[in-house]
Amino acid sequence: MAEQVAVSHDVTKLVERIKDIKIAMMTTVEPSGELHSRPMYTHEPEEDGTLWFFTEKDSAKIDEVKQERHVNLGYSKPDQNLYVSISGTATIVNDRQKIKDLWSEGLRAWFPKGSDDPNISLLRVDINRGEYWDQPSNVLVRAFGY
Amino acid sequence: MAEQVAVSHDVTKLVERIKDIKIAMMTTVEPSGELHSRPMYTHEPEEDGTLWFFTEKDSAKIDEVKQERHVNLGYSKPDQNLYVSISGTATIVNDRQKIKDLWSEGLRAWFPKGSDDPNISLLRVDINRGEYWDQPSNVLVRAFGY
Ligand SMILES: Cc1cc2nc3c(=O)[nH]c(=O)nc-3n(C[C@H](O)[C@H](O)[C@H](O)COP(=O)(O)O)c2cc1C
Repeated sequence: MAEQVAVSHDVTKLVERIKDIKIAMMTTVEPSGELHSRPMYTHEPEEDGTLWFFTEKDSAKIDEVKQERHVNLGYSKPDQNLYVSISGTATIVNDRQKIKDLWSEGLRAWFPKGSDDPNISLLRVDINRGEYWDQPSNVLVRAFGY
Repeated sequence: MAEQVAVSHDVTKLVERIKDIKIAMMTTVEPSGELHSRPMYTHEPEEDGTLWFFTEKDSAKIDEVKQERHVNLGYSKPDQNLYVSISGTATIVNDRQKIKDLWSEGLRAWFPKGSDDPNISLLRVDINRGEYWDQPSNVLVRAFGY
């Protein structure tokens, strides 16, 4: 495949691509070892690349993350030939103030009761490693954590 | 999230969506436990849902799959609001005849030497479970393995 790899230590390029795509397939590990993924809306990333997700406290992913904190976030935008992989560590955050701070009305589609819903949890993902594949060259860029 | 779930035991619906998107983010587990993903071109799925991928024998994913065969395939088509998750088991297949049978010229972008390249391996993924999220309702469909 004569892979061409560029290494960049600039997390902003990675973050720009995440902002552009927004919906990640978040993969978690089940106790059986099986890998499970689902689409997740990514909040405005922090400057250092910290990523935040809203979810339900009683969802399968929360149980899975309690046992195995490694997650992968796969972002795809096929019409632009843009793909991003984030290897990260997830932390469950139940800080009510943080939930209110990050809340936006678009989340009502999933949380009709709003930011006061006691069943909301946040998942914070800290990036251990990030890569992206970009058009037109399809060069893989190892962007973070290398 | 008041999740609405429909269960269908029809693998063809799942396969149609995979055919429509084609590029999967394939997640594998590294020996450290970290989850790694990369875009991968999916061949025409078999009728029972068996999926085939071309890759390099000496690539990281082959090493990872040797140690932990569970993989996830995440397919995203944001402009159609379509997302698919496949939990599967990967097998490394080095059958030269099968490589020739599945070869198509579009693969030259990654394998310029063609189907005789001794560094080609196939990855066969058998689906353990498949789900998709479809517009307009965004209902989750557990389509296979339930
Ligand atoms: C759109 C797209 C499709 C790709 N399809 C394949 C493929 O079918 N097989 C493959 O080995 N690599 C493919 N690649 C390259 C892989 O994403 C990856 O960079 C390479 O396989 C090395 O992965 P690894 O080091 O994690 O094993 C593709 C890249 C892009 C951008």
